[in-house]
Amino acid sequence: MAKVKVGVAGYGVIGQRLADGVALQEDMELVGVADVAPTLSIRALRERGMPYALYTALPEKKGDLEAAGIPVSGTLEDLVQKVDVMLDATSAGVGAKNKELYTKYGKKAIFQGGEKNDVADVFFHGYANYEKGLDAQFLKLTSCNTTGLIRAVDCIDRKAGVEKVAITIIRRVADPGDYHRGLTNALQVDKAPSHQAVDLMTIMPHVNATGILVHTPVTHGHIITIVMTPKKDISADEALKYFDDHPRIRVVSLDEGFLGNASLFRYARDLGNPRGDMYEIALWKDTVVKSEGDIMFAINIPQESVTIPESIDGIRAVMGMQKDRIEATNTTNKYLGIGKWKDLS
Amino acid sequence: MAKVKVGVAGYGVIGQRLADGVALQEDMELVGVADVAPTLSIRALRERGMPYALYTALPEKKGDLEAAGIPVSGTLEDLVQKVDVMLDATSAGVGAKNKELYTKYGKKAIFQGGEKNDVADVFFHGYANYEKGLDAQFLKLTSCNTTGLIRAVDCIDRKAGVEKVAITIIRRVADPGDYHRGLTNALQVDKAPSHQAVDLMTIMPHVNATGILVHTPVTHGHIITIVMTPKKDISADEALKYFDDHPRIRVVSLDEGFLGNASLFRYARDLGNPRGDMYEIALWKDTVVKSEGDIMFAINIPQESVTIPESIDGIRAVMGMQKDRIEATNTTNKYLGIGKWKDLS
Amino acid sequence: MAKVKVGVAGYGVIGQRLADGVALQEDMELVGVADVAPTLSIRALRERGMPYALYTALPEKKGDLEAAGIPVSGTLEDLVQKVDVMLDATSAGVGAKNKELYTKYGKKAIFQGGEKNDVADVFFHGYANYEKGLDAQFLKLTSCNTTGLIRAVDCIDRKAGVEKVAITIIRRVADPGDYHRGLTNALQVDKAPSHQAVDLMTIMPHVNATGILVHTPVTHGHIITIVMTPKKDISADEALKYFDDHPRIRVVSLDEGFLGNASLFRYARDLGNPRGDMYEIALWKDTVVKSEGDIMFAINIPQESVTIPESIDGIRAVMGMQKDRIEATNTTNKYLGIGKWKDLS
Amino acid sequence: MAKVKVGVAGYGVIGQRLADGVALQEDMELVGVADVAPTLSIRALRERGMPYALYTALPEKKGDLEAAGIPVSGTLEDLVQKVDVMLDATSAGVGAKNKELYTKYGKKAIFQGGEKNDVADVFFHGYANYEKGLDAQFLKLTSCNTTGLIRAVDCIDRKAGVEKVAITIIRRVADPGDYHRGLTNALQVDKAPSHQAVDLMTIMPHVNATGILVHTPVTHGHIITIVMTPKKDISADEALKYFDDHPRIRVVSLDEGFLGNASLFRYARDLGNPRGDMYEIALWKDTVVKSEGDIMFAINIPQESVTIPESIDGIRAVMGMQKDRIEATNTTNKYLGIGKWKDLS
Repeated sequence: MAKVKVGVAGYGVIGQRLADGVALQEDMELVGVADVAPTLSIRALRERGMPYALYTALPEKKGDLEAAGIPVSGTLEDLVQKVDVMLDATSAGVGAKNKELYTKYGKKAIFQGGEKNDVADVFFHGYANYEKGLDAQFLKLTSCNTTGLIRAVDCIDRKAGVEKVAITIIRRVADPGDYHRGLTNALQVDKAPSHQAVDLMTIMPHVNATGILVHTPVTHGHIITIVMTPKKDISADEALKYFDDHPRIRVVSLDEGFLGNASLFRYARDLGNPRGDMYEIALWKDTVVKSEGDIMFAINIPQESVTIPESIDGIRAVMGMQKDRIEATNTTNKYLGIGKWKDLS
Repeated sequence: MAKVKVGVAGYGVIGQRLADGVALQEDMELVGVADVAPTLSIRALRERGMPYALYTALPEKKGDLEAAGIPVSGTLEDLVQKVDVMLDATSAGVGAKNKELYTKYGKKAIFQGGEKNDVADVFFHGYANYEKGLDAQFLKLTSCNTTGLIRAVDCIDRKAGVEKVAITIIRRVADPGDYHRGLTNALQVDKAPSHQAVDLMTIMPHVNATGILVHTPVTHGHIITIVMTPKKDISADEALKYFDDHPRIRVVSLDEGFLGNASLFRYARDLGNPRGDMYEIALWKDTVVKSEGDIMFAINIPQESVTIPESIDGIRAVMGMQKDRIEATNTTNKYLGIGKWKDLS
Repeated sequence: MAKVKVGVAGYGVIGQRLADGVALQEDMELVGVADVAPTLSIRALRERGMPYALYTALPEKKGDLEAAGIPVSGTLEDLVQKVDVMLDATSAGVGAKNKELYTKYGKKAIFQGGEKNDVADVFFHGYANYEKGLDAQFLKLTSCNTTGLIRAVDCIDRKAGVEKVAITIIRRVADPGDYHRGLTNALQVDKAPSHQAVDLMTIMPHVNATGILVHTPVTHGHIITIVMTPKKDISADEALKYFDDHPRIRVVSLDEGFLGNASLFRYARDLGNPRGDMYEIALWKDTVVKSEGDIMFAINIPQESVTIPESIDGIRAVMGMQKDRIEATNTTNKYLGIGKWKDLS
Repeated sequence: MAKVKVGVAGYGVIGQRLADGVALQEDMELVGVADVAPTLSIRALRERGMPYALYTALPEKKGDLEAAGIPVSGTLEDLVQKVDVMLDATSAGVGAKNKELYTKYGKKAIFQGGEKNDVADVFFHGYANYEKGLDAQFLKLTSCNTTGLIRAVDCIDRKAGVEKVAITIIRRVADPGDYHRGLTNALQVDKAPSHQAVDLMTIMPHVNATGILVHTPVTHGHIITIVMTPKKDISADEALKYFDDHPRIRVVSLDEGFLGNASLFRYARDLGNPRGDMYEIALWKDTVVKSEGDIMFAINIPQESVTIPESIDGIRAVMGMQKDRIEATNTTNKYLGIGKWKDLS
C-alpha cells in the first residue's frame, strides 16, 4: 500500500514534534515542513543536516533563510501540492489563512488547538470520537490540556460512564525557551469555566463539565486535578486499573520518585527520548481518592508532545487508513513506541 | 475590666503578626514576646526601638542577643508567669515542649497549626466551632489553608448546608525571605487526601471532604479551588452574596485588576497595611460557577496573616471574654480593622 | 517660608512612592496626584480614604474613575497650575507629552528614568551632580539600577577616585504584582554594554564603565556586582568604611541573616516600613574582596523605592531650596527617616 | 590496541552522562555502572533495557533493586576489579570512601568536583593542565562552573596571556527534577571570593582571580560574566576569534535567537541531543566588550554535561592514551561529536 504523504506547516514547538512523529510511522511519508524564518528550531534542523526538506511559507523572505545557510526546497504551496494531508501547527490565526491553500488543492488538513473551532468540520480526539473524523476534510485537534484530560475521562466513561467532572488546571505558563511570555512569583487566575471544560463537553456532550484554570510559573507539564462523578459506582482501585490499562496513560507513584511534573520531564530525558518528550500523560496513583461517589485524582500533561499521537490518529481518520478507533490508535502507538514499557511492569 | 494579658512565644513569621494583632486589641495587653536568637525579625524589633519586650526562651543563649545589641527582659518562664494566655508560634514540636511550662503555671495556651492535634484539648476555628473553645485550657488553631478554607465552607454551611467538598490546594511553597526551602521550575504533588481536607472534617464532622495539594514555586498566597455540594440547591449568585456578607472574605474580580495572588499582596502593600498583610481571604467572583448541583470557586489564602484573627478569637474563647461566636469575632474584627472597607462598596 | 508645592503625574509603582515621600517632607506640600484609570493603586487610594487628591490625566475617562467610586478633583492641567514642580512618573513616552503642559505653564518637572535623556536639561543624581540640577527647569532622574550604582561609585570616587568599573546587573525581571511581563525558568542576556554603564559615564564622565545585564525570574531587588579600579589604592576595609558612612548605603552581612535580596524585602516589611520599602541600597560586607588593585563587591537595589530620595533631592535642586549637595541630601534623608538606624550600630 | 576498561560509580545526573560519554569512545569500553537504590535514573536504565550492567554499591540493599525489577550484575567491588579506571560521580564524601576500594585493587580513579581536593593527586582540567594528569593514579575534576570558566580563560591565556579575572557567577540553583533544593523568588549571595575563582588559581597559578556567586531560581545553565585583563592588549574581535576557534566553546548571538540560558537548552533538545545536553559552553558574541585594557563577556555553563569531556580527557591522561593535550582533547571531541557543527558556519 502506498504510504500516506504528510506535510507539516509551522516548525515550532508542536510542528517539530509532529514531523518527528510522522517520520516514525511506517505507513506514512513525511514530505517536508514549512516555516518562515531562521528560528532556533530551523537552525537546529540545519545543524542536524536537514533530515526534513524545508519549504518556505513566505517566499519573499526566502533570502533570510538562505543567508543563514538553510537550504529551501520550495514554497508552502509547492509542499501542499505534494501531500495527501497537511498538519497545520502554525500560530493561531495563520491556520485559518492556510486553509484557503488546502481548499484550493483539495487537500485534507488537521489544525492544532490554537485555531478557532470553526476552522474545521470536526473537533477531534483519537480516543473519544475517532469515528467522527473518518473521511472528513478538516479536523481541529483538542488543545494539549484537553487532549490529556479527555484521555482520562474517556477511559473511565467507557467503563463506568461519567456524569460530571470538575477540573482544576494548574497550568505551566510558558514552554522551555520562551521569553516572550512568563510569570514571576505569581499565580494567575482565569475566568471560569475554563475552555478545557467547555471543549470536553463539545467532544463528550453527555458529560457535564466545569473548571478553573490557574497559571503557575513553571515550564514543564500542566497538572490537572479532576473530581469525577461516575455513573456507576467504582472504587479507587478499579479506576486505577482502568487507567493503568490505557496505552496513553502512565500510572506513576511518589514512592518510585515521581514527585511532580519535573520528575516526568527528567525521567523522559533519562530514557533518552528525543527532546526529553513523553507522549503519555502521567497519573499519580497516590492522588486517587474516593469521596462519597466521586473519584478525585491528578494527571500530568506534557504540553509539548501530548497532542502528537492524537494528531497522527487524525491522519488515520481523515485518510481512512483504519476504520476502527482501537486499531488506529494502536497503530499510532506501535510506531511511536507508546506502551512498550507497560510490558515491563 | 482588666485587660487580658497575652504573651507570644516564637517571634517568626506568625509570631510577629500575632504580637501586632494582639497589640491592636483594646481589651488585651501584649506583655511580651519570646525567642531564642538574633534573627532578622528580632533585629527588626530592635531597629523599631523594641515596641515589645523580648524574653529569651534559651537563657544560656542570652549573650548572643545582647551581643547583637538587643535588650532582654527575662526568660520565657518569666513571661509565662506574667500572662493569662500564651500564643505559641514556635517551630513544630517546640510548642509541645513549652506546654509543660504552661501547665506548670496553670496558664492557658493557643498553639499554631504546626503542632500535632493532641497538643491541645480543642482543634479550633473562630467561626466554625467557637463554642468548643470556651474556657478550654489549650487550643490548637487550624493551619493557614484550613483556616481560610473553613471560613468559606462554614459560610455556606450556615446558609444552605454543605454535604461535601473536594479541594485542590495550589500551595505557595515558601514565605518571602525563605532560603531553606523552595522549589524551582517544578510542581510537587502530595499524597492525597491532603491534611487540610481531613482537618476540615475534624472541625466540621458533618461534611465529607477530600483534596489534593500541589506545591508551586511562589511565595505569596495559596490558591484553593473548591468543588462544593450544598445540601440545599443555591445559585452561584446566592453563594456569592453569602461570601460577600462574611467579614473575613473579600470578594474581588479580574476586572478590578485582581489577576492572581500577587495582586492581593500588591494591593495590601498599597493600602499601607503593615508588612503588606491582609487578614481576609479573597474570593474571585469570576471563578464562581455552578455545574449541576455543585458550586465551584477559587479563594486566595494570605498564608502569613490569615490565622491571626482566628488566633485572637481563640483568646476570647479560652478567656471567656465573649460567650457568643458573632460577638467575639466581631470584636476581633473591629480592633483589626477587618471589614471596614466593605462600607465603601 | 512657604512650602514648595508638588504634584505627581502617574500613580503607579513609582508615583505612589513619590507621593508618600513628598508628603513626609516638612518643607513641601503634596497638592495631588494624577492618573487615568481605576487601577489597583487608585482603588487602594480610595480604600485608604483619599489621603491625596486625585486629578485625571484623561478627562474623557473621568467616568470610569467615578463609576468605581473614586472622587476626582480636577484634571492634570488643573493640577499643573497649582504646583511649583511636577514629578512625572508616567509610562515611558507619556512624560515627553506631558512636558508640553509643564512648559505651557512655566512649571518645573522631574522625569523618571524611563524617559529619553533629551526630555530634560540635566540628567540628575542627588549625590553625584546635585549642583547641575540647581535652578534647572527639567531634570531626568537616573533609573533605579543607575541611581543605586552611582551612590556606591560616587561614594568611593570622592574618597579615592575611581578610574573604571565593570558591572554585572542581575536584574529582577518584574515588580511584585506584575503579570504583563515575567520570565519563567530562564536567565535572559542583554546586548552589552548595559545602558546603566553608559548612563554612569554620562553623570560621571571621568569614570570608564562597562557592563553586562542578565534578567532573572525574581521580583524583589536587583543585585549588581561591581569590579572597581580606584585611582588611589585602598583596602577592602577602607572601602567598607566609606560605604558604611554613606547615609543611603546599608552595610549588611550574611551572618546577620541577610542571605539575599529577599532578606532585605522581608526585613523592610518587619520594620513596618510602608509597603515593605527601603530607600537605602544594601551592600554585603561578605562580598567585598580585593584583587590586585581592584575592589569587587555586591549591592542590592530595591527597585520600587530607591529613586525616591534622589527625586526629592531633585526638587530641592530645581527649586534652589538648598544650594549645597550635602545639606540637600541630608534634609531629604531626615524627613524620609534614612540613616536613623545607623545610630544603633 | 585493547580498549581501556571504565566503570562509573554513582548513576545520577553526572554519572549517567559519564556512562553515555564513555560508551561513545571507540577506544574505551564501559564495563558497568554502580549505584545503591532504584532511583528514577536506575528505573529509566531498566526501561531502556539495561544498556549498561548495574552493580550495587550497597550489597545489603540489593533486594530493593530487584524488587523494582532491576537486574544486578554484582557489587561495586566486583566492578572495580574488572576495570582499568573508575569515574567516581557519587555524592560528596562517598568518593573519598570509595577511594579505599580503588587503592586496594590498585586502580586509577577520577573524582568529580564535589569531593575535597585532597582526594586526588592532581586537580585536573583537560585543556589547562592535561600534562599534570599523565599517568597519575587519582585525579579530581574541576566543578562544572570552573570547568567551563577555565576553558574560556585558558583559551585567551594561550594567545595573549591573562593577568587577572573577576567573575560573577549567576548560578542555577537546582537541576531539572530536583525537589530537595530550590529557591523561590530570591537571589542568594555567597561569601566572596567564590571557590571557582580560588580553584581557577589552583589550576592556573599565574592568574589572579576573584569572584562573587549569586544563586538564582532557574534550572538550566549557569551564566558567568568575566572581566578579564589580558597581558597583551587584544581587541574584542580578536578575543571573539580565539573563542570561536576553541572546539568546546560555541559562540552564539542574540540575533540568532539565543536570548539566554533557556535558548541553549531548547536548542540542544531540538538538535536531538540525548537528554537535551550540550558539551560546549556558549559565549554570547553580543556581550563581548572592551573597556580600557579589559575584555568583558558572558558564558553559559550547561551544568549537567559540561564536565563530561574533561572527565574523559582525564581517562586519556591517567591511562597515558595520548601524551599530547591537543591530541587527547581532539580524540575525546571526535567521539563525542563536539565541534562538528563548526564546519557548517
